[in-house]
Amino acid sequence: MGSLEVTAGVKATRKLRLGMVGGGRGAFIGAVHRMASRLDGRYQLVAGALSSDPRRARASGRDLGIARDRCYASYQEMAQKESRREDGIDAVAIVTPNNVHFKPAKIFLEAGIHVILDKPLTTTLQEAIALEKIVRKSRLIFGLTHTYTGYPMVRQAREMILGGALGQVRLVEVEYPQDWLAVPLEKSGNKQAQWRTDPKRSGPAGALGDIGSHAYNMACFVTGLQCEAVAADVQTFVPGRKLDDNIHVLLRFKGGAKGMLWASQVAVGCENDIRIRVFGDKASLEWRQEEMNYLKFSRYGEPSQRLSRSGVGSMSSAVHASRVPAGHPEGYIEAFAQLYTDLAEQICAHIDGRRPDPASLLVPGVVEGVAGVRFIDAVLRSSRRNSAWMRLI
Amino acid sequence: MGSLEVTAGVKATRKLRLGMVGGGRGAFIGAVHRMASRLDGRYQLVAGALSSDPRRARASGRDLGIARDRCYASYQEMAQKESRREDGIDAVAIVTPNNVHFKPAKIFLEAGIHVILDKPLTTTLQEAIALEKIVRKSRLIFGLTHTYTGYPMVRQAREMILGGALGQVRLVEVEYPQDWLAVPLEKSGNKQAQWRTDPKRSGPAGALGDIGSHAYNMACFVTGLQCEAVAADVQTFVPGRKLDDNIHVLLRFKGGAKGMLWASQVAVGCENDIRIRVFGDKASLEWRQEEMNYLKFSRYGEPSQRLSRSGVGSMSSAVHASRVPAGHPEGYIEAFAQLYTDLAEQICAHIDGRRPDPASLLVPGVVEGVAGVRFIDAVLRSSRRNSAWMRLI
Amino acid sequence: MGSLEVTAGVKATRKLRLGMVGGGRGAFIGAVHRMASRLDGRYQLVAGALSSDPRRARASGRDLGIARDRCYASYQEMAQKESRREDGIDAVAIVTPNNVHFKPAKIFLEAGIHVILDKPLTTTLQEAIALEKIVRKSRLIFGLTHTYTGYPMVRQAREMILGGALGQVRLVEVEYPQDWLAVPLEKSGNKQAQWRTDPKRSGPAGALGDIGSHAYNMACFVTGLQCEAVAADVQTFVPGRKLDDNIHVLLRFKGGAKGMLWASQVAVGCENDIRIRVFGDKASLEWRQEEMNYLKFSRYGEPSQRLSRSGVGSMSSAVHASRVPAGHPEGYIEAFAQLYTDLAEQICAHIDGRRPDPASLLVPGVVEGVAGVRFIDAVLRSSRRNSAWMRLI
Amino acid sequence: MGSLEVTAGVKATRKLRLGMVGGGRGAFIGAVHRMASRLDGRYQLVAGALSSDPRRARASGRDLGIARDRCYASYQEMAQKESRREDGIDAVAIVTPNNVHFKPAKIFLEAGIHVILDKPLTTTLQEAIALEKIVRKSRLIFGLTHTYTGYPMVRQAREMILGGALGQVRLVEVEYPQDWLAVPLEKSGNKQAQWRTDPKRSGPAGALGDIGSHAYNMACFVTGLQCEAVAADVQTFVPGRKLDDNIHVLLRFKGGAKGMLWASQVAVGCENDIRIRVFGDKASLEWRQEEMNYLKFSRYGEPSQRLSRSGVGSMSSAVHASRVPAGHPEGYIEAFAQLYTDLAEQICAHIDGRRPDPASLLVPGVVEGVAGVRFIDAVLRSSRRNSAWMRLI
Repeated sequence: MGSLEVTAGVKATRKLRLGMVGGGRGAFIGAVHRMASRLDGRYQLVAGALSSDPRRARASGRDLGIARDRCYASYQEMAQKESRREDGIDAVAIVTPNNVHFKPAKIFLEAGIHVILDKPLTTTLQEAIALEKIVRKSRLIFGLTHTYTGYPMVRQAREMILGGALGQVRLVEVEYPQDWLAVPLEKSGNKQAQWRTDPKRSGPAGALGDIGSHAYNMACFVTGLQCEAVAADVQTFVPGRKLDDNIHVLLRFKGGAKGMLWASQVAVGCENDIRIRVFGDKASLEWRQEEMNYLKFSRYGEPSQRLSRSGVGSMSSAVHASRVPAGHPEGYIEAFAQLYTDLAEQICAHIDGRRPDPASLLVPGVVEGVAGVRFIDAVLRSSRRNSAWMRLI
Repeated sequence: MGSLEVTAGVKATRKLRLGMVGGGRGAFIGAVHRMASRLDGRYQLVAGALSSDPRRARASGRDLGIARDRCYASYQEMAQKESRREDGIDAVAIVTPNNVHFKPAKIFLEAGIHVILDKPLTTTLQEAIALEKIVRKSRLIFGLTHTYTGYPMVRQAREMILGGALGQVRLVEVEYPQDWLAVPLEKSGNKQAQWRTDPKRSGPAGALGDIGSHAYNMACFVTGLQCEAVAADVQTFVPGRKLDDNIHVLLRFKGGAKGMLWASQVAVGCENDIRIRVFGDKASLEWRQEEMNYLKFSRYGEPSQRLSRSGVGSMSSAVHASRVPAGHPEGYIEAFAQLYTDLAEQICAHIDGRRPDPASLLVPGVVEGVAGVRFIDAVLRSSRRNSAWMRLI
Repeated sequence: MGSLEVTAGVKATRKLRLGMVGGGRGAFIGAVHRMASRLDGRYQLVAGALSSDPRRARASGRDLGIARDRCYASYQEMAQKESRREDGIDAVAIVTPNNVHFKPAKIFLEAGIHVILDKPLTTTLQEAIALEKIVRKSRLIFGLTHTYTGYPMVRQAREMILGGALGQVRLVEVEYPQDWLAVPLEKSGNKQAQWRTDPKRSGPAGALGDIGSHAYNMACFVTGLQCEAVAADVQTFVPGRKLDDNIHVLLRFKGGAKGMLWASQVAVGCENDIRIRVFGDKASLEWRQEEMNYLKFSRYGEPSQRLSRSGVGSMSSAVHASRVPAGHPEGYIEAFAQLYTDLAEQICAHIDGRRPDPASLLVPGVVEGVAGVRFIDAVLRSSRRNSAWMRLI
Repeated sequence: MGSLEVTAGVKATRKLRLGMVGGGRGAFIGAVHRMASRLDGRYQLVAGALSSDPRRARASGRDLGIARDRCYASYQEMAQKESRREDGIDAVAIVTPNNVHFKPAKIFLEAGIHVILDKPLTTTLQEAIALEKIVRKSRLIFGLTHTYTGYPMVRQAREMILGGALGQVRLVEVEYPQDWLAVPLEKSGNKQAQWRTDPKRSGPAGALGDIGSHAYNMACFVTGLQCEAVAADVQTFVPGRKLDDNIHVLLRFKGGAKGMLWASQVAVGCENDIRIRVFGDKASLEWRQEEMNYLKFSRYGEPSQRLSRSGVGSMSSAVHASRVPAGHPEGYIEAFAQLYTDLAEQICAHIDGRRPDPASLLVPGVVEGVAGVRFIDAVLRSSRRNSAWMRLI
């Protein structure tokens, strides 16, 4: 299945056949998924249902060099036909708006095709729980593209914390401020703004679902802690907007750690400024997307250190996710590609009936997806009850 | 009264006679007050009740070149005798632990002597309200040394925000993390740690009173907004500690702005990392003590700017508080000195029966002091009631 | 020729057939070239002479999924056979040590195949000039991978400077410090260190050729200025090393600008810290690889601005070279990919007999390659004559 | 002699009587000297010849609270009369333009009065050598205010390097860019610009003498190395300007270290951005005035550390020069004050016939002053001879 190629000069591996749902002309995240799938040479895009508009779907397929007969008018058709081909797709990337996550994921899983899904998992907790069951039953690979978990230094932070470098974790301060929705962009024809502020397509959460879920995933991923309860104050600052554009959340973790989470789409001057700081009783770590190749590491009673990707002291999880030497920055697309490449390893192992490289197992899946939807749900409930604490577990 | 001297080469002014309560041998903040009082040449230290131990009081006075007969064994004695001297002190600096703020302040005010008091105002809301009345009745100058309000760029931030540079304020994110109490330093003989974690000397609040109050004052000072309500989660992480060492607070401001406040003394890797970010519907501002001579200013739809102290675009309140040209950093002692110098102008104007320079009026006073104690009180109540919102006004 | 695919979701284009010389098992830069060629989906690697050892060449080819009959034992064989195939390669990437640049470049050009060559052009000025003639005669596309010119903000800096944003350029301060050769790594079996410090494989220049040439190219690329003369002090700090490991150079540009260039492989604490600052009579610009997505832009008499990739005020050359929105960092591989993608456009246009997109024409070519070798030559001569000025033009 | 007071709460010491030459109304650096002298309470300003215009001298004296009879019309008169008073000044601060350094320094030394002189020492090498002899003969204390040597972390850098923390020093990269003279400010009435670009008052060097001398002093102070030779390219960019406004210099140090020095007053976007990087065979250090409370310290093969003033790992020379805890920034005035305070200790020790605290001996004196003038002289000669190397020792 597929031809052989190497990942960053390391070892020969099978090239997987990929299909895509959504991501046609005019879409944004689809193109990023495609670059991510190409970077390490582990996938070949061979089929697509790239738009809900059949004509646009076909035109987009042509743009991408997909064979005519594999440009499908609907994902249902694609799942059916691809699952019957001998050279059918190994995996599908679903890059549609939030409200079109559940159904295609279900259909492809039931057709025996591995799934790579953009976050958030679903728009309701009910669907999320249902999807979790379907995934478990399918025994297939299911990846959720919480991109930031693909950054080498985010993985190193996790490895350090789980290895005890910080001692007992006490504080988790995480934030994801953006500014692009500080004005009512959805009213001036911006498509990205339109669907992200539209409850019909995005579900009940705005900034909360779009980027708050990333911040929450980051907090859990990096610390390995479970969040027990949240108390939230949710706002919509831009007049006429139907969904939240700012959230402030207090966090309580199992084991006693506390934290704060802030996500905003009205924080003027911030682009995609996700960052996290974790403080233990022995040391702390700090990471920020704008300086993604570095970690600030401070042991109590010692000067702060700046750990660099692939630099001295790099841990195995970061080395695994790196391609070029220290000082040559690797960015967002590489982080995204890491998820794809790790999923390729999982899928190949699944096909070969062997155990995957353990280093490839850090990609968020359906469990993290359900946790994210649960968080969104709890934040909204807390805010409706004047910031009362809501339990998550 | 006093000799004439100039402030930073600007204009000739009277040199005031200063007394000090507390700040004797072994004390920390007293020495800082003295440097602050000296920098601009507006005060001469001539009297002191520098310790509650009379012998140490006298020895400390000798160290400082205070005449024998003006080294007092108690602040009561000092207030009485100085108020009777023709060359008696114009003002007194009270730099004692929190529990010895109210009484000496009261006594000196009643003796007709202007008061400069270290924060927090008092340890109870009751005392705070009482002191406010005493100050009002006295018609004397009363300054509270919230040092960070003396930084030129903090003042410029305030001036910009009040002048509308940010538009309508939406978000206030403020924090003050320290790490020195991440371990039980109070058990190993550290005096600063001892009194700051001792409810008898510090009152009911630990990190909350010591630095949370600074963060809160910063939020109010810079935005000019009144905080309406708080919802707080207060922790004590270090086993055996009697007071809080970390606070997470949600903020709601009059007019609709929201915010978060974090203060911690267990944030390993942070020294005195107070910072604030304010976001309006048009622009945002960011200031951090570690880069105290700069503001990050971002207008929506424009590249961020770095405004520098005394640099291009400096506003009058920052120029007023600056001594040297841009690029030559002015630090903590200069900020502290600014409060002293502005209070000197207020006191001189009071003596001369004229209006003080309006630029000198930004020093926090008793109103801000009461607000701070009210905040401490509300945070503690909220936390006891599982983070329920508590109104402040 | 080749299948159709899209660049970052923009427009459909031909997929080119690529061959590679060098870059087999154990090589470093070959893998980076391959990732760069894959990212935007414009190339398919179909042939290779991946090692001078025929067995390793074949094994490496298999790793990469190259068909058996297109894994060649020598580049001579590859040039000959591929040029005769109907589906022969459109372009070849030559990623061998410096001493094996001239011959394969010559052979492929003479076989009518477009060439992508790693820098520096050649190891001698004589060869460089000869190659320039061959390229001109061939009328083929020739790209030299001065990677840093692929960074969007480096291109924006150039566009701004050429557009007059700085006024008359006065000063160019450029540097490229590394630290990996601060110890005699070449003696402990490190292959990268071995060939880079070996005059037989690297030519007469060490750090000068390896990274000094990048710094020089950066200075010329960004300013559009021609360097007139250099005065250099060249050192070898590590005992026993045969080539330089540090250079200090004074620069004089046509038109009156002056500058300094520093390149070092013994600057402990620096990874790949290339940076440039250009000062004009009206404004200045600063760029640094560690913060590759930003430019510091300072107009005289105005606060400094931070321009971000794809952010407000992005210029067309930067937009052209960007893939994801502002705040999502794009790094070294993306910069490298940009050269490949721009060369793909040039090659396609050549094939189609049309004018290429002007935005694709910024890739350094043989002229820049000759300039680089000329610089290396002049620096070495200046240093031998005790830093006397040597003319370059 | 003088009353007793304490330095930053440490120990009781004598308060010295200070006179000042220059620094009257409208002057800049005089006010800074006065703040510096006041901060630690070691001096009292009691006499002055504050202007060469007798009327302005007297008015300025009144502003500063100097007694009528000690406001002198000339420094000659002041030296004569003060040296005869029983309560005459202990020391004089000379803060006049460069061309009025030699004579007053000579006269006060010959009158037995300790001298604090602003840099550069003199405008000619001849005068510098003559002054060195006078100082030696006088056996008095002579301090030269190279302000940046008073920064705690600059002193710590020196202590670390001299203690071997970097191993053998290989590279010294130092720079001092400013931008205020990027335009012909001297033609628009700016007094600072006028005298600094006027050969009559500044001597033969412009930016070179004004700030190049600071950069050179920094390089020598921090490394403890002697500079052996320089090769320089000196420019005047602003049309009509009579002195240099930019210098590029190659440096060779005794023992084999090499370096580059850049000083500029036309570097648009730079305020007073003096910084230094020193690289040894084991480690490196980096300091920058804009982040004056920190050192970047990088050992080969270890992550970089950020050392903070008064933070963990502070060395004695930095602790000696610090007043407040880590994280509370100390700036330019504190650095300046440190020179005054250290000179106070030296002067008191001289008066008392005891050995001064060794920590106070880091203040630059006449030897460093001569070295600075020698550097200026050699740079100008080198530049006139087309950057030929000129020996300094």
